[in-house]
Amino acid sequence: MQPLSPTRRSTIRRNAQRARSARSELYAALDAGLACHLGVVLDGAPVVLPTAYGRVDDTLYLHGSTGARILRAAVEAPVCVTVTHVDGVVIARSVFHHSMNYRSAVVHGHARLVTDDAERRVGLRAVTEHVAPGSWEHARQPTRKELAATAVLALDLAEASLKVRTGPPVDDDEDVAAGGRWAGVVPVRTEFGQPEPCPLLPSDTATPPHVTTRSPHESTRIDA
Amino acid sequence: MQPLSPTRRSTIRRNAQRARSARSELYAALDAGLACHLGVVLDGAPVVLPTAYGRVDDTLYLHGSTGARILRAAVEAPVCVTVTHVDGVVIARSVFHHSMNYRSAVVHGHARLVTDDAERRVGLRAVTEHVAPGSWEHARQPTRKELAATAVLALDLAEASLKVRTGPPVDDDEDVAAGGRWAGVVPVRTEFGQPEPCPLLPSDTATPPHVTTRSPHESTRIDA
Repeated sequence: MQPLSPTRRSTIRRNAQRARSARSELYAALDAGLACHLGVVLDGAPVVLPTAYGRVDDTLYLHGSTGARILRAAVEAPVCVTVTHVDGVVIARSVFHHSMNYRSAVVHGHARLVTDDAERRVGLRAVTEHVAPGSWEHARQPTRKELAATAVLALDLAEASLKVRTGPPVDDDEDVAAGGRWAGVVPVRTEFGQPEPCPLLPSDTATPPHVTTRSPHESTRIDA
Repeated sequence: MQPLSPTRRSTIRRNAQRARSARSELYAALDAGLACHLGVVLDGAPVVLPTAYGRVDDTLYLHGSTGARILRAAVEAPVCVTVTHVDGVVIARSVFHHSMNYRSAVVHGHARLVTDDAERRVGLRAVTEHVAPGSWEHARQPTRKELAATAVLALDLAEASLKVRTGPPVDDDEDVAAGGRWAGVVPVRTEFGQPEPCPLLPSDTATPPHVTTRSPHESTRIDA
C-alpha cells in the first residue's frame, strides 16, 4: 500500500503537522463517512453538493441520475471530493485558539464515466453497501431500465490528502497561567438510531440483522 | 423575511419536490450545522474544504488565517458554501430506491473580504458563537495581532437553496406487493458527548453552564 504522496494541490500547507500520510488512515476516514461533498466547476463557478459514495481499493465511486447536472459536469473534468468528520468542538481559553477536532479527506482528480457493465455493478454495489451494508444482497437488484437511468463515476485516490486534528486546545502559555477560563473539548458523535420500519411493511415483519446490527460510525474514529 | 427566490443556478432541478422556499428553514438548517464545505475554483479546478461559519441575518461569515490559500481564492470570486445534515439512511425494497434523508443548504455568491473593524468583530463573534455558544464572552478576546492574522469573509444569503428529504422509502408498487424485503429508515443523529476538560486545567475547575447545557444539534431537525 503506497503512502499518500502529495502533489502540489494535495499538499497540506496550513497546520501541516495535521497532515497524515498513511493510506490506511485515508481509507478509514472515507469508509467511516456517509455522504461526501462533490465539487465541480459549472459556468466558471464552484458547485458543491452532498452525495453518496463507495470505495473499492483506490477507487471512489459516485452515482446519480444520468440527468443530474452536477454529474454531467463532473465527467472527465476536474472534481474535488471531500469527506469530513467533525469529532469535537475545541474550546480554548482565548477566542483565537478555538478550533474543531476533525478528520477531512480531500480527493482531487478527473472523474471517469464508468461504461463497462461489470464495473458499473461493482461501483453501484460499493455505493449501496457503503450507505446501507447488507442491502445489495437483501434488496431487489437493479433492472436494465434502472441501470440505464444511473450514471456511475469513478475517481482515483491517487491525489488525496487527509488532515486530522485531535486532542485538547493549544493555548498561549500566558492564558494557561492566568487561569479563570474553562478549556477543553466537547466531543461530537454521529450515531444511528432505532430503525423505523416502512409503514407499508406488514406489522409482524422482523428487522433483519444487517439493519439492526449496524455499528455506529464513530467506532471507526482515528486515534492520535 | 423574503422567501427563497431561486436564480438559475440556485434552482433545484432533480427531485424538485424536495426544494424548500421558506427562508426560516434555510436559517434553521444553517444554524444547526457545525462545519460547512466551502468550494472555490483554484487554477481552474474545484477545491472543497470544511470550515467553520456563523450567520447574522442574511450574511454568512467565514474566517481563517490570512495565509490560507482557499480564503484568498474566495475573495471577490465565486464561491459555493454547502451545509449538509444526514438525517437518515433510507433502505428501500429495491437497490434503486435506496436514499438518504437529509437537509442540504447551498449558498452561491461572491465572498466579500470584511475590512471594517466593527463588522470583523461581528463576523468573528458569529463564527465563535456558532461553534461554541457562550465562548465569545467567556474566553479572552482577540488581540490586535490575532485580529490582524485573521481574515473574515462575508457571503450574502441572497442566492441560496434548501433541499430536504424526509420520510420512508418510496418503492415501486410491485416491490411493495411482492413483500419479503425489509424497508425503512435508520435515523442518523449528531450528538454532543460529555465535555473533556483540558489536562492543563486545575482539577477542581467546574465546567461552566454554557458548555454543559449545550443541547444536541439534532433538536433543530426540520419536520416534513
